[in-house]
Amino acid sequence: MVGSWADTAGTLPLSSSSVRTALWHAPGMHVEECVFCRVVSGDVRSEQVYQDGHTIAIMDLRQPGWPQAVHILVMPREHVEVIDELTHEQATQLMTSVVRVSRALRRACQPKGVSVWQSNGEAAGQEVLHVHVHLLTRGSGDGLMRIYPSAPDTPSFEDMAPVAESVRVRIGDDR
Amino acid sequence: MVGSWADTAGTLPLSSSSVRTALWHAPGMHVEECVFCRVVSGDVRSEQVYQDGHTIAIMDLRQPGWPQAVHILVMPREHVEVIDELTHEQATQLMTSVVRVSRALRRACQPKGVSVWQSNGEAAGQEVLHVHVHLLTRGSGDGLMRIYPSAPDTPSFEDMAPVAESVRVRIGDDR
Repeated sequence: MVGSWADTAGTLPLSSSSVRTALWHAPGMHVEECVFCRVVSGDVRSEQVYQDGHTIAIMDLRQPGWPQAVHILVMPREHVEVIDELTHEQATQLMTSVVRVSRALRRACQPKGVSVWQSNGEAAGQEVLHVHVHLLTRGSGDGLMRIYPSAPDTPSFEDMAPVAESVRVRIGDDR
Repeated sequence: MVGSWADTAGTLPLSSSSVRTALWHAPGMHVEECVFCRVVSGDVRSEQVYQDGHTIAIMDLRQPGWPQAVHILVMPREHVEVIDELTHEQATQLMTSVVRVSRALRRACQPKGVSVWQSNGEAAGQEVLHVHVHLLTRGSGDGLMRIYPSAPDTPSFEDMAPVAESVRVRIGDDR
């Protein structure tokens, strides 16, 4: 039984470090080694839910809560590793498809809710370095996706202000 | 200490059911009762990270992993409850801001990764019925955000095909 996209594609050797993305994940992966590029090309099997000129949506191999829950991945056709490397056009096309698939998912499954997430970097749980957005239908008390493992801190506005400022001053900087 | 946006705004009475969104959450909330609309208007205090004509980004009151991790919310200025009710323009504007803030967050905090998520419906953990995208910086082994509480099922392509078909046929349907 295939348990993940990495299993599907076999070993994915890593190569050639990427300075541009070094803060998020190193080293970078060649496109020809990327299992989602191979899904896009049809070289690796997938169950497709949607496709257009810029994006595809497929059933994830991992279906937590199956068959009550449905888990779909939406991704750009082009190889982009993490969210902040998406061009404006790619980001727009991806989000358009996410909304489109989300609407169809509501009509098809009539779930109580839908969780949407997207992971960047191995530390965030990203397993395939090709941007993909997860959609997972949710039922009340289904126990899937624990956002906060413990009670989160609630720092004061004064404590948060310098952190916010450090982000604020970098908005609009060139990459 | 304020622990959530609901605490900030006091009791948020629910009113007037919404047929359009009944599958996701019922009953609907009036805009004037929405704490994020009040954040947008400045009526409720927030620590703002970014704003443009269509969206704002703020520090979340809940900061899991603080101060190593930083947790930001990006939302449309307009009151839209769940992702699949976003117009094409709203979806585009929101995603553009998410990417912009994500880039700034990388530069400011140089995290190992970033988790992005967005919850629709109470069953998915949505607490404020005004679309908001979470960004959370991640460190290796930080224990935040458990995506799969247990080993997820890995159904066969044959098992997934009819589910995929049920979504596929609804792509492009009118709402």
